[in-house]
Amino acid sequence: MDQLIEKFSMLGVDNAPGQETLQDGEGLRLIGEKIPGRPVDFSHGDVNAFEPIPGSLDAFVEGVHLGGEQAYTEYKGRGNIREWLSEKLSAFTNTTISPDTQLIITPGTQGALFLAMGSLIGRGDKVAIVEPDYFANRKLVQFFDGEIIPVVLDFLESDKRAGLNLAELEDAFKTGVKVFLFSNPNNPTGVIYSYDEIRSIAFLAKKYDVSVIADQLYARQIFDGRVYTHLCAQDTKPVNLITIIGPSKTESLSGYRLGVAFGSENIIARMEKLQAIVSLRAGGYSQAVLTSWFNEPEGWMEDRMSAHQRIRDDLVALFHGVEGVKVRKTEAGSYLFVRVPELRVTMREFVKILRFQADVTVTIGTEFGPQFTNSFRINFSQDHHFALEAINRTVQLIERYRRE
Amino acid sequence: MDQLIEKFSMLGVDNAPGQETLQDGEGLRLIGEKIPGRPVDFSHGDVNAFEPIPGSLDAFVEGVHLGGEQAYTEYKGRGNIREWLSEKLSAFTNTTISPDTQLIITPGTQGALFLAMGSLIGRGDKVAIVEPDYFANRKLVQFFDGEIIPVVLDFLESDKRAGLNLAELEDAFKTGVKVFLFSNPNNPTGVIYSYDEIRSIAFLAKKYDVSVIADQLYARQIFDGRVYTHLCAQDTKPVNLITIIGPSKTESLSGYRLGVAFGSENIIARMEKLQAIVSLRAGGYSQAVLTSWFNEPEGWMEDRMSAHQRIRDDLVALFHGVEGVKVRKTEAGSYLFVRVPELRVTMREFVKILRFQADVTVTIGTEFGPQFTNSFRINFSQDHHFALEAINRTVQLIERYRRE
Repeated sequence: MDQLIEKFSMLGVDNAPGQETLQDGEGLRLIGEKIPGRPVDFSHGDVNAFEPIPGSLDAFVEGVHLGGEQAYTEYKGRGNIREWLSEKLSAFTNTTISPDTQLIITPGTQGALFLAMGSLIGRGDKVAIVEPDYFANRKLVQFFDGEIIPVVLDFLESDKRAGLNLAELEDAFKTGVKVFLFSNPNNPTGVIYSYDEIRSIAFLAKKYDVSVIADQLYARQIFDGRVYTHLCAQDTKPVNLITIIGPSKTESLSGYRLGVAFGSENIIARMEKLQAIVSLRAGGYSQAVLTSWFNEPEGWMEDRMSAHQRIRDDLVALFHGVEGVKVRKTEAGSYLFVRVPELRVTMREFVKILRFQADVTVTIGTEFGPQFTNSFRINFSQDHHFALEAINRTVQLIERYRRE
Repeated sequence: MDQLIEKFSMLGVDNAPGQETLQDGEGLRLIGEKIPGRPVDFSHGDVNAFEPIPGSLDAFVEGVHLGGEQAYTEYKGRGNIREWLSEKLSAFTNTTISPDTQLIITPGTQGALFLAMGSLIGRGDKVAIVEPDYFANRKLVQFFDGEIIPVVLDFLESDKRAGLNLAELEDAFKTGVKVFLFSNPNNPTGVIYSYDEIRSIAFLAKKYDVSVIADQLYARQIFDGRVYTHLCAQDTKPVNLITIIGPSKTESLSGYRLGVAFGSENIIARMEKLQAIVSLRAGGYSQAVLTSWFNEPEGWMEDRMSAHQRIRDDLVALFHGVEGVKVRKTEAGSYLFVRVPELRVTMREFVKILRFQADVTVTIGTEFGPQFTNSFRINFSQDHHFALEAINRTVQLIERYRRE
């Protein structure tokens, strides 16, 4: 059992987003009093502030009333819903996706990511992942006994490109990397990869025969009219390419646990086989809710995006007013990755202090890469007013704990 | 990638329950005409014939209206629902289950099984599984690179005990088996393990330090007033024991994808870590439906059981009237495992013929163990009348294809 003890010792959950109540506050070196204010949990979006797509619950109820045909779908998802999704996602990405062989409905995008990784990573395979990137990526590589090859994203370097070190990526590919996994828009920084970056990733992956998983969870919420480039729509692209997307973020359908993966037939076929033993299928009735996705009332997505853009602008302005704080303006999605100046406490302590003294929950930077010891991530899909107040309290605590 | 190609070649899905539409009918050696009748899909229960627990949809809708707190639960499930479940399941099993450390809510019992297996099986570990038993068990061992040690269940030998070969089990344990996995009531035969069998399993597992996963999915639907023995309630039992149960079968909540695992703290902790990278959590809103479980209207479970018992009696009588057919009367759950006499076609062909000529879907016996080449499983949680008609057609086809 020793290999299991080692494996599970690397799979922590206490600092993961949404798990913060598992942390204890013992031994904190507190300075000063609590700052009162309404609690804000920036570890994930607030579906009370930004509600699910109108009609999504009705679609669920209709699914329940359909009975058995909706409860027991094929493992890869119900046929007519896969058809709907392939049509909408083909149009969205400007590609052609077969509903029968190139698409699978999963329990959340986390489910899609797990299936894709499990279908592509063999024992000892080298897997290139970006740092910083989604907190589960490294854990997934470890669980499947792969070897992590980190590639740096220098996201503070420019605002014209995400900042991927392409020379480093090619070096990694040259050493025999089998799989490259990245999120675009990047989680936790909210930056999007430029056209040139995506073209280069696609070209290099094809050249070195690297399988690619593109996690595009936030690809529908693009700010400032920026151009978003879909890797799957490029002429030159890797043989094995899986794209992941879902309605949990911008569309606030997280409570239904829905995700979609599409791409190379042979990998989708493996993912279906794996889903059969992992969880059988995405919840049958929940699948019915997918008919409200890409089917939002006119103007609804635009309103949602501009509301988020306004929150972003106010929060970024607040952070830019603090000496030593560095943050790149979110280009897509609802994340800000905030680098703070040197404090008198560790970041691990500071995020707890934030909870205990200001009722503000953020996610520690080291969840996104071991080197991000002085950063935290916030999801600003929150009530605008209370988010602003909460970041005001956060700024006060940064000042209070700043190392002189 | 070769290890992956091999691994996934063993993970078929085309013959798994509910996937039958993926089979083609080419080259079938058909005899005679179609027998008309209403289609019946015995691969799983019919939630139109036996509807979900009254109030379950209302509980879901309430969950949606609770908003963020229900959408984003802890990975192991929402605290107050875990409390509810631990109270009900402690009473049901006559044990004491801690809601904080000994219980996890999962996406279906399949999800629980995957997490339990992933938490207990290391590469090369020997895993004892019963034959016949749930179709995914062998696939899970293969996926986690374990080694399958089959133990025979001679379920036609007696009606006083399930028929586990305890000498064979002890021999397997002596050779260094790490994990023993079994379903009780057994899927696909519907037999339950006797008190002596459960005591022996518990004793041997403790003696040889074997971790045990007891899949008790159908443990609430017991016929003929039989006694059901919970392994977890025994004084002598293995250090690592995980019990799995869920509301997908008797209670017809399958469309919500809900399962529960409870047992040894250290294994539950691993399962939580694994869930964080597999699917994050069971659907948040769906979790709210668990408050209708063990909370059914008075008499509802009894009615459901007696309705199933009547269907069982009629179907068993039909099968007993056919020369050469062998079936043991279901003791719990809704399965019958039917051994048919020698036919002029293979069983793989016969199950397709059944679909094409009689609109009857059954699951081929080899999904439950490679030696069950002349058996099929039916789930008789169906409309009583149409189930009877469908089995009448099935019997006609057995006669038609019987080898003289």
